[in-house]
Amino acid sequence: MILSPLFWPVELKGKLIYILDETALPGRLSRIKAGNYRQACRAIKEMKTRAVGQVLLVMYTFLLESRRKTDLRKVAEAINATRPTLFFKMLTDMVLAWSANNASIERNITGFLEMLKNKRVEQAGQAAKLLKDEDIILTHCNVSGLLPLIAEFCRREGKNISFYVTETRPYLQGARLTAWELNRQGFDVTVICDSAAAAVLSKGKINKIIVGADHLAKNGDIANKVGTYQLAILGKYFNIPFYVLCPPASTVASGKDIKIEIRPEKELLEIEGKRIAPKGVKGYYPAFDITPNEYITRHIYLNIHR
Amino acid sequence: MILSPLFWPVELKGKLIYILDETALPGRLSRIKAGNYRQACRAIKEMKTRAVGQVLLVMYTFLLESRRKTDLRKVAEAINATRPTLFFKMLTDMVLAWSANNASIERNITGFLEMLKNKRVEQAGQAAKLLKDEDIILTHCNVSGLLPLIAEFCRREGKNISFYVTETRPYLQGARLTAWELNRQGFDVTVICDSAAAAVLSKGKINKIIVGADHLAKNGDIANKVGTYQLAILGKYFNIPFYVLCPPASTVASGKDIKIEIRPEKELLEIEGKRIAPKGVKGYYPAFDITPNEYITRHIYLNIHR
Repeated sequence: MILSPLFWPVELKGKLIYILDETALPGRLSRIKAGNYRQACRAIKEMKTRAVGQVLLVMYTFLLESRRKTDLRKVAEAINATRPTLFFKMLTDMVLAWSANNASIERNITGFLEMLKNKRVEQAGQAAKLLKDEDIILTHCNVSGLLPLIAEFCRREGKNISFYVTETRPYLQGARLTAWELNRQGFDVTVICDSAAAAVLSKGKINKIIVGADHLAKNGDIANKVGTYQLAILGKYFNIPFYVLCPPASTVASGKDIKIEIRPEKELLEIEGKRIAPKGVKGYYPAFDITPNEYITRHIYLNIHR
Repeated sequence: MILSPLFWPVELKGKLIYILDETALPGRLSRIKAGNYRQACRAIKEMKTRAVGQVLLVMYTFLLESRRKTDLRKVAEAINATRPTLFFKMLTDMVLAWSANNASIERNITGFLEMLKNKRVEQAGQAAKLLKDEDIILTHCNVSGLLPLIAEFCRREGKNISFYVTETRPYLQGARLTAWELNRQGFDVTVICDSAAAAVLSKGKINKIIVGADHLAKNGDIANKVGTYQLAILGKYFNIPFYVLCPPASTVASGKDIKIEIRPEKELLEIEGKRIAPKGVKGYYPAFDITPNEYITRHIYLNIHR
C-alpha cells in the first residue's frame, strides 16, 4: 500500500530527528532536524509538523533524550507547554509511567510506534468500508495521510472516489497538503475556498464529509482545525453524513473543557510576509473549534490499546 | 458625514473615468483611467471595482459614450456580457429607454446618480436604526462604503458599535477593503478567517450579521459573495439576526434563476502570483452563492424610484 509522506512525517536516525517541513509543501519536500527536546518543541510551536507528526515527534524526542539520560520529567513539561488544545499530556504521562516502572523505555516506545502505524492503517480501512463507488467527499484541513490511504483501500475494492477540499486558511493545509498528497497518488481533487462549502453542498455535489480531530473528549465532542464546526452544522443542514477520523479519547469530559489555542494574529493578517489588512486592524485566530458529539454521524476510532 | 472612498469609487472628469483600483488597496489608494466602454468593461471583468463601483462605472460610461455619439446599444451589449450574476441589464435597459424616448441622457444619468447617492445615505441611516449601543456586527466581503456610514450614523446617535469581518478569500475584500475603510474612520474592527464564523458566533460575541447583495430577486432571495449563504445558515442556527443591504430588485423571479459566475481557478489557486496547490489539482470558484429569502431577517432596501 502506498503511503503519503504525511502519514509518517517524522523519523529518528542516529542522534537526529528528521521532520518533514510542512510549511515548505507543496513546493519543496524537505526535512528539518531536531537534536534535542528544545528544538523539537520549537518545531511543534512553529507548526513545522502537525497532528500525527507531532505525536511522532514527541515519542522520538523521548527516545532520543532517554538514550542521553536526560531527566524525562523536564522533557514532558516542555512538551506539555507547547500547544494547549492538543492532548500531549496523555502521551507524556504514558512515557513517564514507563520510566517510573523501570520498564525498557526503548522497547515501549518503539512498540507503541509500530502499533500506532498498524492501527492507523486499520483506521483507514475501516473508513473505506463506509464509502461507496462514485462518492464525492468534502474534507477540511489535513488528516496526516489518512485520506489517500482511504482512497487506496477504495481503489483496491474497485470503488472510485473523489474529493473536494477547503483551502483551510490561514495555513492552507487543504490546498497545500491534502490536495498535494491526494493528487500525487492519482486521486481526483478540487480545491474550494472555505466560504464555498454551502455553495458546493447545496448543489448536491457531495455525498460525505470526512475530517480529522486533534482532540477527542470522553463524551464524543472533538476539537479540530477551526472551520470544522461550521462544516458539521452545514452537514446536518444539508443532510450529509459527517465522519470523524479520531485520535484516542483524552481524559477531558467534554468539548467545553478543551482549551482552544489562540494563534498570533500575524499568521492571519500576513500572507507570504505581506500584510493584507492595514495597521490598527486586529486579527482573531482561534486555531481550533469544538464540534459537539451530536453533529458527528460516526466516529472512526483509532483502536490503540495501552 | 464622512464618506468612505469605497462609497463613491468612480468619477467622470472630462473625457476620462477615474476608477479607484480596489485590487491595490489597502496598500495604495490609486485610480485607473477608462476612456471608452471597452476599457470600462475590462475594469469590470478584472474586478478593479465591484458592486456600486460597477454601477457608477456603467452610468459614467454611458454618459461619456453618449457625448461621443457612440451607438449606445453596442455599449449596452458589451456591459451586459461582462459578469453574469450582476443585473446590469436593468441599468442598460433603463438608459436605452431614455435614449429611445429622445430624453436628455445627460440630465437623466446625472439625476439618477444624484438620487442614488442620496438614497444610499438614507439606506445607511435606516440600517443604523436597527442597531443598539455596544452591538457587535459580523460582516462578509465589502458593502461599498455603507458600513462605515452606518457606524457614523450610530456614532452621531451616541451608539458605539464594533465589527468582526471575515477576510473573504480569495479576493480578501473583508481584510483589504472593509477592515481598511472601518479602521480609517476610527471604528473597532477585527478580521477572522472565513472558517472562524461558527467559532466566533458560538462564543456569543456577535449580535447581528449584516451583508450586502449583488442581486436581489423578486421573491427576496439574494446573490452575494460566496460564503454569504453559510453565514445565513449559521445566523439561523445561532439565532442571530441576519440583515441584507439590498440593491433594487431585478426582474428575476427567484434565486434559482440567477446565473452564478464561475471565476477562473487561478484566482483561487494562486496568491500573489505564487501557486498554493500543485499542478493537476483543480480549483472551483463560484464567485457568488444564493441565500434564500427565509434566512434573511430583514431586507434593508434601496428605495430608488425609476
